[in-house]
Amino acid sequence: MGFDEVVYGATKSVTLLLELLQDYSEKGQNVLVTKLQEAKAKILLKTYETSFYDVESGIFMLSHITEVDAKARVGIISAGSSDIGVANEALYTLAYMGVSAHVIHDVGVAGLHRLLDKLEELRAFDILIVVAGFEGALPTVIGGLLPQPIIAVPTSTGYGTAKNGETALYAMLTSCANGIVVVNVDNGYGAAMSAVRILNLKKQ
Amino acid sequence: MGFDEVVYGATKSVTLLLELLQDYSEKGQNVLVTKLQEAKAKILLKTYETSFYDVESGIFMLSHITEVDAKARVGIISAGSSDIGVANEALYTLAYMGVSAHVIHDVGVAGLHRLLDKLEELRAFDILIVVAGFEGALPTVIGGLLPQPIIAVPTSTGYGTAKNGETALYAMLTSCANGIVVVNVDNGYGAAMSAVRILNLKKQ
Amino acid sequence: MGFDEVVYGATKSVTLLLELLQDYSEKGQNVLVTKLQEAKAKILLKTYETSFYDVESGIFMLSHITEVDAKARVGIISAGSSDIGVANEALYTLAYMGVSAHVIHDVGVAGLHRLLDKLEELRAFDILIVVAGFEGALPTVIGGLLPQPIIAVPTSTGYGTAKNGETALYAMLTSCANGIVVVNVDNGYGAAMSAVRILNLKKQ
Amino acid sequence: MGFDEVVYGATKSVTLLLELLQDYSEKGQNVLVTKLQEAKAKILLKTYETSFYDVESGIFMLSHITEVDAKARVGIISAGSSDIGVANEALYTLAYMGVSAHVIHDVGVAGLHRLLDKLEELRAFDILIVVAGFEGALPTVIGGLLPQPIIAVPTSTGYGTAKNGETALYAMLTSCANGIVVVNVDNGYGAAMSAVRILNLKKQ
Amino acid sequence: MGFDEVVYGATKSVTLLLELLQDYSEKGQNVLVTKLQEAKAKILLKTYETSFYDVESGIFMLSHITEVDAKARVGIISAGSSDIGVANEALYTLAYMGVSAHVIHDVGVAGLHRLLDKLEELRAFDILIVVAGFEGALPTVIGGLLPQPIIAVPTSTGYGTAKNGETALYAMLTSCANGIVVVNVDNGYGAAMSAVRILNLKKQ
Amino acid sequence: MGFDEVVYGATKSVTLLLELLQDYSEKGQNVLVTKLQEAKAKILLKTYETSFYDVESGIFMLSHITEVDAKARVGIISAGSSDIGVANEALYTLAYMGVSAHVIHDVGVAGLHRLLDKLEELRAFDILIVVAGFEGALPTVIGGLLPQPIIAVPTSTGYGTAKNGETALYAMLTSCANGIVVVNVDNGYGAAMSAVRILNLKKQ
Amino acid sequence: MGFDEVVYGATKSVTLLLELLQDYSEKGQNVLVTKLQEAKAKILLKTYETSFYDVESGIFMLSHITEVDAKARVGIISAGSSDIGVANEALYTLAYMGVSAHVIHDVGVAGLHRLLDKLEELRAFDILIVVAGFEGALPTVIGGLLPQPIIAVPTSTGYGTAKNGETALYAMLTSCANGIVVVNVDNGYGAAMSAVRILNLKKQ
Amino acid sequence: MGFDEVVYGATKSVTLLLELLQDYSEKGQNVLVTKLQEAKAKILLKTYETSFYDVESGIFMLSHITEVDAKARVGIISAGSSDIGVANEALYTLAYMGVSAHVIHDVGVAGLHRLLDKLEELRAFDILIVVAGFEGALPTVIGGLLPQPIIAVPTSTGYGTAKNGETALYAMLTSCANGIVVVNVDNGYGAAMSAVRILNLKKQ
Repeated sequence: MGFDEVVYGATKSVTLLLELLQDYSEKGQNVLVTKLQEAKAKILLKTYETSFYDVESGIFMLSHITEVDAKARVGIISAGSSDIGVANEALYTLAYMGVSAHVIHDVGVAGLHRLLDKLEELRAFDILIVVAGFEGALPTVIGGLLPQPIIAVPTSTGYGTAKNGETALYAMLTSCANGIVVVNVDNGYGAAMSAVRILNLKKQ
Repeated sequence: MGFDEVVYGATKSVTLLLELLQDYSEKGQNVLVTKLQEAKAKILLKTYETSFYDVESGIFMLSHITEVDAKARVGIISAGSSDIGVANEALYTLAYMGVSAHVIHDVGVAGLHRLLDKLEELRAFDILIVVAGFEGALPTVIGGLLPQPIIAVPTSTGYGTAKNGETALYAMLTSCANGIVVVNVDNGYGAAMSAVRILNLKKQ
Repeated sequence: MGFDEVVYGATKSVTLLLELLQDYSEKGQNVLVTKLQEAKAKILLKTYETSFYDVESGIFMLSHITEVDAKARVGIISAGSSDIGVANEALYTLAYMGVSAHVIHDVGVAGLHRLLDKLEELRAFDILIVVAGFEGALPTVIGGLLPQPIIAVPTSTGYGTAKNGETALYAMLTSCANGIVVVNVDNGYGAAMSAVRILNLKKQ
Repeated sequence: MGFDEVVYGATKSVTLLLELLQDYSEKGQNVLVTKLQEAKAKILLKTYETSFYDVESGIFMLSHITEVDAKARVGIISAGSSDIGVANEALYTLAYMGVSAHVIHDVGVAGLHRLLDKLEELRAFDILIVVAGFEGALPTVIGGLLPQPIIAVPTSTGYGTAKNGETALYAMLTSCANGIVVVNVDNGYGAAMSAVRILNLKKQ
Repeated sequence: MGFDEVVYGATKSVTLLLELLQDYSEKGQNVLVTKLQEAKAKILLKTYETSFYDVESGIFMLSHITEVDAKARVGIISAGSSDIGVANEALYTLAYMGVSAHVIHDVGVAGLHRLLDKLEELRAFDILIVVAGFEGALPTVIGGLLPQPIIAVPTSTGYGTAKNGETALYAMLTSCANGIVVVNVDNGYGAAMSAVRILNLKKQ
Repeated sequence: MGFDEVVYGATKSVTLLLELLQDYSEKGQNVLVTKLQEAKAKILLKTYETSFYDVESGIFMLSHITEVDAKARVGIISAGSSDIGVANEALYTLAYMGVSAHVIHDVGVAGLHRLLDKLEELRAFDILIVVAGFEGALPTVIGGLLPQPIIAVPTSTGYGTAKNGETALYAMLTSCANGIVVVNVDNGYGAAMSAVRILNLKKQ
Repeated sequence: MGFDEVVYGATKSVTLLLELLQDYSEKGQNVLVTKLQEAKAKILLKTYETSFYDVESGIFMLSHITEVDAKARVGIISAGSSDIGVANEALYTLAYMGVSAHVIHDVGVAGLHRLLDKLEELRAFDILIVVAGFEGALPTVIGGLLPQPIIAVPTSTGYGTAKNGETALYAMLTSCANGIVVVNVDNGYGAAMSAVRILNLKKQ
Repeated sequence: MGFDEVVYGATKSVTLLLELLQDYSEKGQNVLVTKLQEAKAKILLKTYETSFYDVESGIFMLSHITEVDAKARVGIISAGSSDIGVANEALYTLAYMGVSAHVIHDVGVAGLHRLLDKLEELRAFDILIVVAGFEGALPTVIGGLLPQPIIAVPTSTGYGTAKNGETALYAMLTSCANGIVVVNVDNGYGAAMSAVRILNLKKQ
């Protein structure tokens, strides 16, 4: 399905990662590594000079993707500036899959007018990925206002009753807005891949 | 503090309740019974013909309160029609304490425009009690729009990840809106009593 | 967005439901009621003779939908025969929205060959809704084999560590397969509505 | 509503914080940063010499507030000396909002007489913010003795069954005292902001 | 150890219970059955006319114990009238073991003065069993005031965040008062048996 | 009650601790500090040369207690060698309170014969404090064999389903042995204090 | 694998069950139905006169199995008489699979000597299935004394902290005895099937 | 039972470990230490030059086992390369017990064909130990395809809803495949020891 060249970086040693990258490099293939810690990334970046790393999201690729669709088809909306890592994980995964996306930062529910001002801009996207921590209300509000597919991504931002993202996760699953779908906490990668599945459908 | 004449009805037997009511009745006092089941209420209503019972909230009083402040000072906003019982528990408790309130039903977050249309009406209240089940986003949205004291009441409405009100409770406690306070799940009574504490303050 | 004529039936009284239905009936509109208990449905069915009720899913409509797209565009796959209610909730919601779907029953992971035999049949659908209780492994296995959008619906089938669907929910969210999205436990309605959002996209 | 100039510092990088502060500084505005770690604060303090930082609470402001109401209107009561950080977060937030408050330390429930000795002092405040970890019994005891608005703040002090503040949180929400309201674990900031909402009401 | 003639009644069929009782009856022994439902108790009471049953606690004995120590050595304090069943379970278990006890009802924390008025009465007991639901603060307050062994019994009284007694249980285990010990939720029987262990020690 | 001179060390700064110790030192009083981290202890030990610190339990005292009752009255039984810290916390707290105790290590349930061999030795103590992590079965087995007061202390030893001591805690509270009482996870101090309450009783 | 003719009865309607049974009956095959409620079983028993139903376990078979191995190869040990249903589920499942087993009732940990008396009897079985509710300590004790494969089955017996079998489940998984394996709460059927897998191995 | 020479290394100090090892060394016995951290292992390796340590699993032995059964009797299947530590813990424990095993890496459910290709290889083992993190679906799939005893080991691999292995644990316990047994999270050691119990049985 073209989904295979992805490596979960968080629990792999540098030694193992270097082995894997050499394979891809020799075959002339790109590869996407997710949730890679900065210390490990620095070593990989030294070995592969043309490789790319985003410190906020922990995304690493053997070669950066710059050529994507001219038109941004996926809107990635983040509730707060602390959610940038997860938003970027979705952004770069989409780029890796050849899909153009655009990130709109800091459109929280508590400042509703900022959100309402952006409504027409949001309406132009094929798919909306909505990233939020704390109480996770943003996908519910957007879902009540716009008709596109909405993929909600809870983040582990917050403290106490935020419960490392579990509160946002449950709030999104329990949303009173229609037809919101949800992925794992902090899983920007998964949100992007489900957007790819949907866009594949449109291509048919 | 004038808070004492309140009886938690859910786990008391009819025999015990009749004993307690006789005491109050003989002293010529009114009394508020909360969370009283319908079957038990029917027996009490037969014994005390001028007493009052609201089946939605399970509120029972020896004599109904009709004379309250002329102006409704507390706005009780409910997210869905399933939350009526909890909204009524707040309404009748406030009446019992001599405070006039007004309930505004079915102003959910998924239909945001209905809420925005009512904004000026809501702005006129001294205090807002916001009742919501499912993902519990309503107090966050209102808290971002209006400056009054906001008492959020999560309800056990919903299924699955609603977790009997725990998701709404946590979402309200984790709200990214400023200065929202929260009471126990389905605790319309507690919300009303905290409104009374605040209004006492204003009287000074 | 055309999503409004839906009523959550589980916690509404017959009196309230009859009031609501009369409104729709007078306006000549159809309406979808979800999670309606059988005893309440029987009363509604008597009042509205041409109405429709499915006892497995608790779905009620003022008038049954029979004219949908000629070609089934959504495949609804259920892991066990105990999941039929949730599968039907998705099926009838899609019908109500004018989308043709087909249910494929009893394709559990423990009998893998039955699933592999159906692979080509499944490949023909635009979207797959995968319904499973117990350990919830079915969306993961299908997600590794097929490229379409996959909407996973955990069900509360099972006992003990099934934890009323929470285990299936978490397993689906944690899936090692790419791009699976998830809705609330037993939420066949939500899965259908998210499929509608995706199909709207394709129409553009 | 005047609530906007507040920045959640815990998950923001120094680079981002410096950017934000420059904006406020250039506009001649003060700003409140919450839950800021010491290492990051030290860098900000160097850049803005007249700024203020409290290490216990992690509160940072561009310029310290010293001019507040002559009379302390909010009493902040802490159960143990480990709760000082949360008490200070409330104290400095109130100062930032122009409200005078007074902290009363170490009035735990296990030493009841110390509490009873302070009863008249507590009665003089308009609002009581009660901060407690461990079993969180303090707001219940005070709520039974005094009639003011009581905002309970659970803290993450304790070990084992203290469950990082969840036990205190639940105990406060379940309080058998009337009309106690609750905010998130360790959320001194939120308690202060809800006090501001209440005091705004009194001003009317 | 003399602890054996006790039968957990809740999950045993009447047939099995009758078999067991016949054994004890034939041997001329008394027996204690705990948590016995009323419907089952009625059948047993018919068969054994001199037997005893307390409907509040579900305690059943083949013959009632009336001769105990002249002086009540254990004080059983209950926070609310809903806790009477658990208090009685402790009372009758102690009677069965030959220990005299006295129940003091409705001494909740929210009405602190009622508790302070009873302090000298409580000081006279060898051991205090403190029964409380909701937020479970009573053992903490008593533990700070009195030096005896204190056995805390959480009850499942309350709703929402009371979590069927878990909140009271955790609050008691996390108590900031010294040397409180705790038994299972609603376990009046266990509290009584641990009091028996302690009194055995004193006898030595 | 003589319980006051105890300081919870884990969340207090060295500065605050030094202040507190100076007070006690000047008054010629001893003091017990619990759960004190090694780094902080080293600084205190330098200041107070005759003070005492046990690294396993984190117990610190201004002066070591060596004169206690000639006869060990409390038996402290630990299930594994990883539980030594909690056992020592009980031991030194008892010493501080003037009570002699004896620790018996490594008497786990999996090696039952080692336990049975020690039965007579255990029978000689007035009170048994039983410390166990993992599945926490030891108090149940001992409670079935011996008639003394048994204070069970769950520890956070173990991994995965040990859940930081919660499994042992619940197992002890649910014990099928009669009259076991329980304290917080890792709370050797609390177990000792409850033993002191019981021994006070015997003295009368 | 010969595992297929098993039907989970709890969530299937009588209509569906009758359909399924007719299929098996016509093919002359036996079938095992698990967790079948008594009311539904009575209807099936009327239709199939030679069928078998055990009310304790809810096991139903089209024809009772009486011919099994002469020698009991699996010992099923239950901790209390409330665990009989789960023990029987294992017993009849084994019979259905052609394996002889023997149930030994009421060998709890609190009465250790009864267990030690049976040790040689237990040593004679190839496999031990150990069924226990409450604190679930029995498999740990047996696992420390005997070398056979031990399959632990937690049951939902108990109240409060028994948490519907979760405490026993976690205690068994965390057992300090070596090589204990565990199945779902109340899953006597699963324990039997895993015993069958092991005995198949021995046959080779 | 030959199970005793095993030491849980994670919570023991180097000093204590060296003491224990000297005992075994002097007696000429080997010993197995589990979950030993690398820093502590390095010190032990220096002292005992012929000892063995595997950094992935944290297994340490005084002398490496190389002579085992000629034929691998246990197949250890791991779902992903992050599960290698747990797989190795099982492998080396089996070696220590004299049992030959073989590890098959990276046979995840998302890539089903890799698994199906290995089916005949897997069929040759007496026992299968199946190690998986994330959603833990692998034992269910294998259990539906192969008839051997299957010991499932959940691992703590994954993030968010993986919940440190709890999701995989629950999914395995709730498996719809027949006769799967489960051990604690990350407990490769326990899986190996239960395999030893089963193989002992075959020897008879």
